[in-house]
Amino acid sequence: MSEKIYVGVDVGGTSIKVGVCNQDGALLHTYEGPTENDKGSERILANIAAYARLVVEQTGRSWAEVEGVGVGIAGFLDIPNGVIVSSPNLNLRNAPLKAYLQEHLGKEVYVNNDANVAALGEAWAGAGRGVADCVCYTLGTGVGGGIIINGRIVEGFNAAAGELGHISIVPDLEAIQCGCGKMGCLETVSSATGIIRMAKDAVARGDQTSLAHVPDITAKDVVDAAKAGDEVAARIVNRAAYYLGKSMAVVAVVINPERFIIGGGVSKAGEFLFEQIREVFLKYTPEAASKNVQVVPAELGNSAGVVGAAGLVLRS
Amino acid sequence: MSEKIYVGVDVGGTSIKVGVCNQDGALLHTYEGPTENDKGSERILANIAAYARLVVEQTGRSWAEVEGVGVGIAGFLDIPNGVIVSSPNLNLRNAPLKAYLQEHLGKEVYVNNDANVAALGEAWAGAGRGVADCVCYTLGTGVGGGIIINGRIVEGFNAAAGELGHISIVPDLEAIQCGCGKMGCLETVSSATGIIRMAKDAVARGDQTSLAHVPDITAKDVVDAAKAGDEVAARIVNRAAYYLGKSMAVVAVVINPERFIIGGGVSKAGEFLFEQIREVFLKYTPEAASKNVQVVPAELGNSAGVVGAAGLVLRS
Repeated sequence: MSEKIYVGVDVGGTSIKVGVCNQDGALLHTYEGPTENDKGSERILANIAAYARLVVEQTGRSWAEVEGVGVGIAGFLDIPNGVIVSSPNLNLRNAPLKAYLQEHLGKEVYVNNDANVAALGEAWAGAGRGVADCVCYTLGTGVGGGIIINGRIVEGFNAAAGELGHISIVPDLEAIQCGCGKMGCLETVSSATGIIRMAKDAVARGDQTSLAHVPDITAKDVVDAAKAGDEVAARIVNRAAYYLGKSMAVVAVVINPERFIIGGGVSKAGEFLFEQIREVFLKYTPEAASKNVQVVPAELGNSAGVVGAAGLVLRS
Repeated sequence: MSEKIYVGVDVGGTSIKVGVCNQDGALLHTYEGPTENDKGSERILANIAAYARLVVEQTGRSWAEVEGVGVGIAGFLDIPNGVIVSSPNLNLRNAPLKAYLQEHLGKEVYVNNDANVAALGEAWAGAGRGVADCVCYTLGTGVGGGIIINGRIVEGFNAAAGELGHISIVPDLEAIQCGCGKMGCLETVSSATGIIRMAKDAVARGDQTSLAHVPDITAKDVVDAAKAGDEVAARIVNRAAYYLGKSMAVVAVVINPERFIIGGGVSKAGEFLFEQIREVFLKYTPEAASKNVQVVPAELGNSAGVVGAAGLVLRS
């Protein structure tokens, strides 16, 4: 009998990515098709099912070899029942995704939120390979996260575990309000959005910085300026790194993971950023919880979602 | 065949408590004998084994009915192998506790640290009964903790999970150094020691407070003064509650437990303290992670250790 294969689906507002993995999480083949979000929920569900069958066919494997199908999707989910209660960028409301796919694909289907799924991908087959307990941060427009203990996603009572962007970490005196309505969330300083805001504030304040001459500041502009020696930019990047490292110190004494994995656009700043994060992490974490604990970049990039979704089949 | 029973052992520097539980965690009988720490490690191990047999006999049950034996102990442990590497208040160094007891008792033996075990006791048969995910704080001389996910203790990579007293939570500007060597740990403000220190500082500073006339201030004195309307004492209790609630806000977005359980001497302040903690918790926690989440007092008191140790047999 041939080796089993695992199908992962990463559902976005514009496109749906599907992939086929082997039992070790190696990505054998991928396919990407349009979500057709404007054509309504029936079409989205039908596309997911069609692309899943297609990618297996393209891999040259038979559908019988598929052990199961996992789906990662942004939104408010009823995970055990695989129902999409609502989604910020998809035309799905109380959509019975799991039931639909099980009926149309004839396989066991697992659904989880995109941030958890990306974390599982890294833990299973990326920067956390072979590590039982790891914590993933994704530094993008916001700050996402996922917690993996004993190789499995920690979902939490309301499926709100791993919401690392909403760790309340900035002290009241210097906190601003987060999109979630609370004050001082990590996301307000350590996301690309937070970095851009701090840079624009500095320019508006008249701080002496090369960023004053940049028309539409991006997080990469700020990191590049910091690397080039711009002190204002360096202070901003350091503040993002400081609160990220401090939030990791808290996570470390709560669950003591073996590895922290950091991905997303901002993490492309590389060792320049990672060195600052590690320094703060070690400063605030008791040795028992920091000893031999690694802080490393994510490895899978945009594939983490598809790989992690396939991983749901083995790790649910 | 009669119902299985579970033996729990709580090893302290002065005495060893043993108890017999049924499969639901009800404590059927307990016994307490001297540790005889001054007589060396062999004697301590022999006493644990002897008291375990004795308490079962006193319960009127046969040793054959014992499903397993769990032991909770303070110290640096090798949990999988059940070795006590070192212990702050016990004459045990590299002591193979699990192997010794398995040989002398003829049962499966489980060893874990006292804070984790107490948390498991509350989760299994105390304030967390029926709840899959809960987090326990013990507010005593220090601040201890334990994390229970899916009914089981989260141990962490270096067995340092649940070290909630070392959550770095007090901002640098007002932080003091903790016994662990780091700045701003929760324990520096929310333990009995922290409360007493803040009270003594206030008196030394000449603050207007009834505590100035108390000869040897205890945490209970501070709480009582706060309840009686002393503003300085009220500020101190509120600060302890504030950082505790803020630390819970962080824990909530990391693992999103269903219930927070707070025990230890300081928690005897009751609703006066709990109301303040809940207010801060709700202020800093996004609704997704606070909705229907409860903050409740521990129920088992000093029995949590024995019950939780027995629980290791079922929940390891």
